[in-house]
This record gives sequence, structure tokens and C-alpha cells, in this order.
Amino acid sequence: MNDRLSRQIAFIREVDKLKTIFRQTYLMDAARHENDAEHSWHIALMAWLLEEHRGPEKLDVLRVMKMLLIHDIVEIDAGDTFAYDVQGHENQFERERQAAVRIFGLLPSDQSAEMMELWLEFEQRETAEARYAAAMDRIQPLLHNYYTEGKAWREHRVTSGRVLERIRFLEREMPELHAFVAGLIDDAVKQGYLLP
Amino acid sequence: MNDRLSRQIAFIREVDKLKTIFRQTYLMDAARHENDAEHSWHIALMAWLLEEHRGPEKLDVLRVMKMLLIHDIVEIDAGDTFAYDVQGHENQFERERQAAVRIFGLLPSDQSAEMMELWLEFEQRETAEARYAAAMDRIQPLLHNYYTEGKAWREHRVTSGRVLERIRFLEREMPELHAFVAGLIDDAVKQGYLLP
Repeated sequence: MNDRLSRQIAFIREVDKLKTIFRQTYLMDAARHENDAEHSWHIALMAWLLEEHRGPEKLDVLRVMKMLLIHDIVEIDAGDTFAYDVQGHENQFERERQAAVRIFGLLPSDQSAEMMELWLEFEQRETAEARYAAAMDRIQPLLHNYYTEGKAWREHRVTSGRVLERIRFLEREMPELHAFVAGLIDDAVKQGYLLP
Repeated sequence: MNDRLSRQIAFIREVDKLKTIFRQTYLMDAARHENDAEHSWHIALMAWLLEEHRGPEKLDVLRVMKMLLIHDIVEIDAGDTFAYDVQGHENQFERERQAAVRIFGLLPSDQSAEMMELWLEFEQRETAEARYAAAMDRIQPLLHNYYTEGKAWREHRVTSGRVLERIRFLEREMPELHAFVAGLIDDAVKQGYLLP
């Protein structure tokens, strides 16, 4: 087998572990926690479907999808850090960067470099593609929380202010999505899914 | 909320069920069966990484990824049919077509039509994109079977001839991938993972 293919297969085997990294979020039926591979599938699909709400500026949707397919692979080594866990965020970037070096490094060097670049672009949230990708990554668990009557929010005693803070960047760039999500948060407080 | 967004959210909620549709294939660690959402994530990522083995003709990788992200959504209604289950394949297409009409029909009509077209293209396996997508969909479970020492193959008493038959179309179009996979099948027989 040629060396490139052998490296690609090693990577494909390694990332199977993403299916065993569980998040705090529950599936819509609330039966169990969601894993990172399922989550990544769901938001890649959302990125395709919700693009029109991004405004007139055309996005490179393939680039967005690539970011979303790989954005959580670092958690194979670094673990999932709950969005509202302050302590876990200390050293998070360094732990994740080391994971990226190891795991993406299994690939041929050109592909490893491409993946590292996309992962850093996603983390830095500066390009239009990275910001749109981040929007998907934040809206999806919010939907899961809302439609499971705040199951993970209640377990972690999350307040509406912290959820609003995480989606604030949508307000200017994706006003319609922001209004929809802010409406869910408002209702979640009324229903007791989320602390005021 | 505008009608388009409301339909898109209804679809995004509905397809969460793909995470509860289990396949015959086991995860690489053999601990449990894989679900369709995880599988779809894995093969979309593989399509990005293995494109160079497709030969010099350029593919529309975004189109391939879209096909792979949605190709199993019909199983929410129609269930998973094991690749080597002859009886289950009777009426399979009609059951899946009805599922596509219902589930894709949750979306705004232009997106529903796009998704139906992509699903049919995948099913018909005629375009270069559909054939490459099908290759990913066949190679991935084969890797899982091989690296779990044929766990699902042994449970279903699958023979090497039937596995070779399913990947035969790769031989001309993706000779290097075909040779690699044929090598795994050969070794699987030697190791007793697969019946001769």
C-alpha cells in the first residue's frame, strides 16, 4: 500500500473514537447524551440548509463543512469541555492544540497542514466561514436543550444571560437566526427550562 | 418566525432520529453497533481525504458530501437493511422513496427538491460523484468489519465473494483503493474473519 493511503487509513481508523466522546447535550428524545461524531454530522447538514440566513455575501460552504466535520476531533485527546464550564476552559486551547498536532499529524503532511489551518480558522472565528460555522455549533445544542425542556441546562443550572452571551455575535450577522434563537431562550425562561 | 426557517428547523429536529438508527456494523473498538448519523459523518470526512485516489478527473466534493450527509436519512422511516440481507432488499427502494418524500418534504420546496435529486443521484450510482460517494459508503463498513476481526461478517456468515462483488465497481475507477480493500478481504479470509 502506498504511504499516503496508509496514513489516510490510519487517520480514518483513529477518528472513529469521536463516536465515543460524549457531550453534555442530550438527543432530541432525551434518551441519552449526544456524541461528537453525531453532532458534527448534524451541524454540517445545518450549514448547508441555513446558508440563506447568512445574508447576501456568498460563503464557501465546502470550507464550512470541512471545518464542522473536524472541529471536535481534538476532543479525542482533550475531552469535551461543557460550554458553561469555566474551569475546564483553562488550558483548553493548549490541550486541544497538542491533540490537533498528534491526530492531524497522522495524515500526509499536505492534508495535515490543511486540517490544522481549518481547525485554527474555526477556533479564531474571524473569517465569514468560521463565524458561520461557529453559529451552527452554538445553535444546534441550543435546539437540543430547548426541545428536551432544558435537560442539560437544568442539570448545570445555566442562566439565560450566559446562553444569550454565546449567541450575541449572531445579532448583527444573522439577525433572523438570532431573533429565532433569542425567542427560544425567552420561552425557555418562562417554561423554567433555563434560569433567568 | 418566517415559514422557510420554521420548515428548516422542523427538518433539523426530525433528522435527529438518524442517531437512533443502528447498523449491523460495529465501531472500531467493537463495543457497540454504529448508528447512521455517525456513519454519515465518517464517510463525508473520508470523501474529502481520499479524493486523490479517484483519478485525475475533478469531482464536485461538496456535492459528494451533501449526498453522503443525507443518503441514509430515509432509514428513519424505512430502517437499516443489512448489505447482505437478500430478503430485506425486496421493496427496499419503494419504502425508502416514500420516506424521502415525507422527510425531505418537511423542508421548503426548493430544498426538498434539491435533496430528493441528490438522494436519487446517489441511489442510481451513475454520475462520477454518486459512484465515488458509493465507494465511501462501501469501504467504510468494510474497514470496520476488518478491524473488528470480522465481528458483523461472522455473525451473518458473510462470504468473501459477496464482499468482493460489492466493491467490484472500484476496480476500474479507483484501482488503488480496490487493491487495498481486496487485500483486506484476502487477509480476512486467511484470519477466519470472513468465509471463503
